[in-house]
Amino acid sequence: MAEDKKQVEAITSMSEDFAQWYTDIVLKAELVDYSSVKGCLVIKPAGYAIWELIQKQLDERFKETGVENVYMPMFIPESLLEKEKDHVEGFAPEVAWVTQGGLEPLQERLVVRPTSETLFCDLYANIVHSYRDLPKVYNQWCSVVRWEKTTRPFLRSREFLWQEGHTAHATAEEAQARTEQMLNLYAQFCEEVLAIPMVKGRKTDKEKFAGAEATYTIEALMHDGKALQSGTSHNFGDGFARAFNIQYTDKDNKLSYVYQTSWGMTTRLIGAVIMVHGDDSGLKLPPRVAPVQTVIIPIMQNKPGVLDKANELAAALKAKGIRVKVDDTDKRPGFKFSEQEMRGFPTRIEIGPKDIEAGTCIVVRRDTGEKITVALTDIEAKLPEILDDIQKNMLESARKHRDAHTYSATTYDEFVDTINNKPGFVKAMWCGDVECENKIKEDTTATSRCMPFEQEKLSDVCVCCGRPAKTLVYWGKAY
Amino acid sequence: MAEDKKQVEAITSMSEDFAQWYTDIVLKAELVDYSSVKGCLVIKPAGYAIWELIQKQLDERFKETGVENVYMPMFIPESLLEKEKDHVEGFAPEVAWVTQGGLEPLQERLVVRPTSETLFCDLYANIVHSYRDLPKVYNQWCSVVRWEKTTRPFLRSREFLWQEGHTAHATAEEAQARTEQMLNLYAQFCEEVLAIPMVKGRKTDKEKFAGAEATYTIEALMHDGKALQSGTSHNFGDGFARAFNIQYTDKDNKLSYVYQTSWGMTTRLIGAVIMVHGDDSGLKLPPRVAPVQTVIIPIMQNKPGVLDKANELAAALKAKGIRVKVDDTDKRPGFKFSEQEMRGFPTRIEIGPKDIEAGTCIVVRRDTGEKITVALTDIEAKLPEILDDIQKNMLESARKHRDAHTYSATTYDEFVDTINNKPGFVKAMWCGDVECENKIKEDTTATSRCMPFEQEKLSDVCVCCGRPAKTLVYWGKAY
Repeated sequence: MAEDKKQVEAITSMSEDFAQWYTDIVLKAELVDYSSVKGCLVIKPAGYAIWELIQKQLDERFKETGVENVYMPMFIPESLLEKEKDHVEGFAPEVAWVTQGGLEPLQERLVVRPTSETLFCDLYANIVHSYRDLPKVYNQWCSVVRWEKTTRPFLRSREFLWQEGHTAHATAEEAQARTEQMLNLYAQFCEEVLAIPMVKGRKTDKEKFAGAEATYTIEALMHDGKALQSGTSHNFGDGFARAFNIQYTDKDNKLSYVYQTSWGMTTRLIGAVIMVHGDDSGLKLPPRVAPVQTVIIPIMQNKPGVLDKANELAAALKAKGIRVKVDDTDKRPGFKFSEQEMRGFPTRIEIGPKDIEAGTCIVVRRDTGEKITVALTDIEAKLPEILDDIQKNMLESARKHRDAHTYSATTYDEFVDTINNKPGFVKAMWCGDVECENKIKEDTTATSRCMPFEQEKLSDVCVCCGRPAKTLVYWGKAY
Repeated sequence: MAEDKKQVEAITSMSEDFAQWYTDIVLKAELVDYSSVKGCLVIKPAGYAIWELIQKQLDERFKETGVENVYMPMFIPESLLEKEKDHVEGFAPEVAWVTQGGLEPLQERLVVRPTSETLFCDLYANIVHSYRDLPKVYNQWCSVVRWEKTTRPFLRSREFLWQEGHTAHATAEEAQARTEQMLNLYAQFCEEVLAIPMVKGRKTDKEKFAGAEATYTIEALMHDGKALQSGTSHNFGDGFARAFNIQYTDKDNKLSYVYQTSWGMTTRLIGAVIMVHGDDSGLKLPPRVAPVQTVIIPIMQNKPGVLDKANELAAALKAKGIRVKVDDTDKRPGFKFSEQEMRGFPTRIEIGPKDIEAGTCIVVRRDTGEKITVALTDIEAKLPEILDDIQKNMLESARKHRDAHTYSATTYDEFVDTINNKPGFVKAMWCGDVECENKIKEDTTATSRCMPFEQEKLSDVCVCCGRPAKTLVYWGKAY
């Protein structure tokens, strides 16, 4: 058994080297593989199945709010990218350029989309004419490319999968409402589905999206105390509409510019799930995004009736809507237990001749390690309850960890000491000046994560410069 | 009313100009829009929703056969593309090249994937070691790029959406079985979901995929008598495995090459749906891929109770799993009727004060135009039956049209006359020599569509050269 554990769990411990622990998990849980394309990953079945569950549940929530899915070209002509000044400045240095199509050089270079504001603006300029055409609430699921220098699986890679919503509205108020609606939807999704609590807030001007009037963000705290920006929602005002000339005739026959938003979440969420929930035994998946919610492990599976009973149980649980598989390989049970832990399946069911005789099975929870004996006649009713409880418990644990690693500071010495020695968020007041953000980053490498919606007043003055404070900021070292 | 019809249906008639009719439909039914990227399209909500229904139902069928989804990089390094000689020769002339990343030129050019055999081979070479690792049955849903010179919405564009399955097997027999299994799955899907009957067969060497040992195809007949290749399944033998050195240790500890397949279907299927089922009133969607299966059109909707009843009906039908919407816009009913026909929704339900008083509503079928009075107490049971009947009837109509436009020829004069004057498939015997294929293409523009699984013997000799015939071929002019 000890050997089984060693073989499966040859992963670095979190406390020893968190970065290596992360890399070990993504590879040993078979979520990704490296590819021959520098900075690009293969997302393997175990990883992609998590993304499919995220997609499905997020897309359902989108559609309930009136979102319609579309597909836009993956290329952006250079001249189109250049139409909005701040936007092109933000993205041009990190895009991939297509310069040849077939055997001929292109007359105009194309960018592989790093994001599609410009394409959606181009479309809206063509199809929005009257107030009757508004709002437009379009979204696409696709991959985008940003030519990053250093990459890490799920967290930062040259190509990643995401959804990007792009909307056009008749009024500034409606655009602001949609911006906030989607941020709230993101936060709720992350809490309810990924079991990750979020801090919601607004980005400072320094940290906002290229071309946005305001960027809103959800920020999560990883197990190592670093912050992860997990989703953003941008209000563009009418800036892009002016650059792309997107005008509509209102009810009084007057021409007006539309107001726009965009919002996105990415495969980075899988990185968040790993780094919030994982432990030294491996991945730990919240039941709602677990491709396998329970693995049935037959004990002494060669004894007559054991495999039959395992398969019968699997069929019954599947009929209840539970994602179940039977591990009937010829590996030893101890190895299978460790594998279930490594792969993060929320529960395993152990069932052997003695259990069958007693009319029971043993459910082992991945989150607590608890072993629960359940009568076979009760398991169909009981397992969904256990999965629900795991989902709740994982959110609760993550919230406790986040809260226990959220600090406050009112003097600069205290701030620097906390941010450097106590991994986590540090709440502190800020004057609103980018120079203080720059100084803090220089002194500590920490950045402003957001100005939270839930404001507090810790003191009257900026933690950095001592001038009057305008707002509370969450600071942190970030991925 | 006549004016409503004119306004909505300003489309060219099929008999007048089929190509223009097609273009009119894709634009007026709002399936696509042109983009600023030459040769690339915007797939709008009405078009993308069809693709989502295709994806969902096809993916379910895939997973039942053990397919696992993954995601591979969208770029292929030039050196990787070049590893299989036939493959690179086939694709290199029509790919897009990325030559710069960020501000720097790349050391090695990257191709935007036209198809991903080379990437999957690269992965399999890394992860397949033992017979225990086989089979690998991976698939991805993504977009691919082929730098086509002339493009048409859905049928041929520089970027299109598809799925591509790539498998690796221990034996040649298993690879052949998977190749055929997926072709049969495709054909069954097209019949059952898209209501399009397919001719299944094998491609001649001239028409097979670059790098394949054998390519199998499903071919559909469009309303204008042209053929559309709708899905292909390739058996690669061990050709790619040798080029990429994908070897495994078998049970006797002997090193062997794997045997591989790939198979794909694309957004072209939407083009097939349009051209098989559409008519001069617009699109006609089979219920199983109709994003809206019934649109409820309230008559005199300002009268008290009408809209309430319409919404109540919609809620009841939605609860039965029917995709329903209420058209409560301020357009006139006649306009709404024409719009339902243009957009191809399989049924509409007309309900006004008189109907409500009588406790009935009127269901109008898009396929036959038939008006059916249904009691409101029966509609929840009756509408699914009507939708099923429409689905069956559409397949039946398509089959009749296909069969009525499938001809035979035994002499070359008869062959040329038929293929030029009777749009459709022409069955004729073939000697197996590419020179006859070339001559037929030169003389008539027709190509060999496939050597059908269901063989007949029309004569002993090749329809073109008179030498002994080896096989029956379906010939046709194709998209």
